[in-house]
Parts: sequence; structure tokens; C-alpha cells
Amino acid sequence: MRILGVDCGSRITGYGVIESDGLRHRLIEAGTIHTSERVSMEQRLCSIGRRLREVIAEFKPDCAAVEDVFFSANARSAIKLAETRGVVLFVLADHGLAVGEYSPATVKQSVVGYGKAEKGQVQFMIPSLLDLDGPIASADAADALAVAICHATRISLGVSS
Amino acid sequence: MRILGVDCGSRITGYGVIESDGLRHRLIEAGTIHTSERVSMEQRLCSIGRRLREVIAEFKPDCAAVEDVFFSANARSAIKLAETRGVVLFVLADHGLAVGEYSPATVKQSVVGYGKAEKGQVQFMIPSLLDLDGPIASADAADALAVAICHATRISLGVSS
Repeated sequence: MRILGVDCGSRITGYGVIESDGLRHRLIEAGTIHTSERVSMEQRLCSIGRRLREVIAEFKPDCAAVEDVFFSANARSAIKLAETRGVVLFVLADHGLAVGEYSPATVKQSVVGYGKAEKGQVQFMIPSLLDLDGPIASADAADALAVAICHATRISLGVSS
Repeated sequence: MRILGVDCGSRITGYGVIESDGLRHRLIEAGTIHTSERVSMEQRLCSIGRRLREVIAEFKPDCAAVEDVFFSANARSAIKLAETRGVVLFVLADHGLAVGEYSPATVKQSVVGYGKAEKGQVQFMIPSLLDLDGPIASADAADALAVAICHATRISLGVSS
């Protein structure tokens, strides 16, 4: 099964595609979508949505996974994140992909074995879980791969979100 | 000039298309996109984005207008509204439409002449501004027409958002 994980962010959105049987996971692709804070929010959302469409067309995932809503103390950041998340959920659903949603704690529990792990520990674990020689350079791409791995594991256990 | 106004809401999103020279406005189309609270948020976002795409394809607006972000006291509602707004902004930008954004007070000022007008007064003014015989049944469609009229007037004055 091929799974697309997305780590939503208005400035940097990470994505990662893995192939998995629930136990062994293989990296297909990982990357980030950067947007400039100097262009309008709709142009940034447009870049994110269009690039995500290209990733889906190129790597043809069977399903997708994203992190749950995150309530920020900063209302303006929370709104931008939610606008980005709306675009991501729309593009995934528009392509007929079922979307698993997991809390950050569930993702950490799944890849590090501890729900309160630091972000750096997630990034550290990804290469060994995907049997890679080197690290994943981008923390955002690593987070996207983490939610994809979490989904793969959960599906195989019959406990997907 | 043909303008599409959108009133974003996760439960009901209103839309309205007008033709305007900045002084006289003519109704082309108005309607609402209803979504069920019993389906997942991504399915609701999918319905809204797809229907908006159909409206753009059918009525071919030259530009669009939406209300500014509204900060709700209820964080969960604010997140849903922002996710919806993200989808709307993405679909508009994806179709190459420039988007004017106005505060609720600016829209009220524009159509009622008073920034602190009640919502009902906006709905009451729309038929006379569009030279219609009867009222606009939906408050959400009326709000969408109001932001379109606001944009038309602003553009003609050279003070668009």
C-alpha cells in the first residue's frame, strides 16, 4: 500500500510517500513545498494545493494521512495553518484519497514509542524505520513521513483513525 | 465586470455573481452550498471546493471577493471556518481570479452605509441595490452578493482592498 503523509504549514508544507505492508516501510519520495511570506495568502495556498496535486499525480498514493488540528496560542498562526490544512484536505479528498488523521502524540508514539518525544527524535528515527543510509534533511519532510508510517502501522493493526 | 462574492462557512457557504460597472449592479446568480455535519470535514471541504469550481466554470467571473478572517471566540469553529476559507481562496487563485478581501464593517459600510449595521439590514438592502422585485431568501447568499457589490464599488473608486 502506498501512503502519502502531509505535514501542513503555511510557510513549509512537508510531504512523504512510502510503500508499506504495515511492518516494513519503504521510502518512495519526500520533499517540501516552500512559500514566500511576501506573496498573498491565496497565492501561497495556490502553490501548496497545485504542488500537492502534482505529487499525487506522480506518485499515485492509495491513501493519505495528516496530523490533527493543532491549537496555537497565536490566533493568526492558527488561522493560517487551518487555511493550509483546508487546502490539503480538499486536494486529498478531491483525488478520492481517504485521509487518516492522528494527533502529534499518536504519531510520536508510533515512530518513537513515546508520545511526548521531542521533534528531533522523530527525525532521528525515520531513516532506521525506512532503512535509509543517511538522515532526512528536512524536519518537515520527516514529519510527513512519520504520519505516513503511523498510518501504515495503524491500518495493519486495524486501528486506523 | 463580472464579480463572484463568496461568504465562507463550513456548514453553509454562500456565493453570488453580479455584473457591475461600479454604479449599477445586476444579479447573475446566487446560491448556497450546504454541507452535512454528519460527514467528515474533508468531505465537506471537497463538496465546497468542487461546487465553487462549477460556479466559476459556469458563470466565468473576472474577479472575486471574500470577507476577511473573522476571529471567533470558539476555537473549534474558527478552525473550521479557516479550513473552509483556505479551500475557497485556493480554488479562486487556482482559477486565476484576483481576490479582494474586506472586513465585515467595510462590506456593511458599502451596502448599508453604516459599518455597524445588523446582518438583517444587509439582506434587506441587496434587492434594491440589484433592482430585484423580491428578497434574497438566503442570508448567506445575500452576504456573498454584499461582498461582491462592495468590491465592485471599491474597484470603481480605485480603492479596492
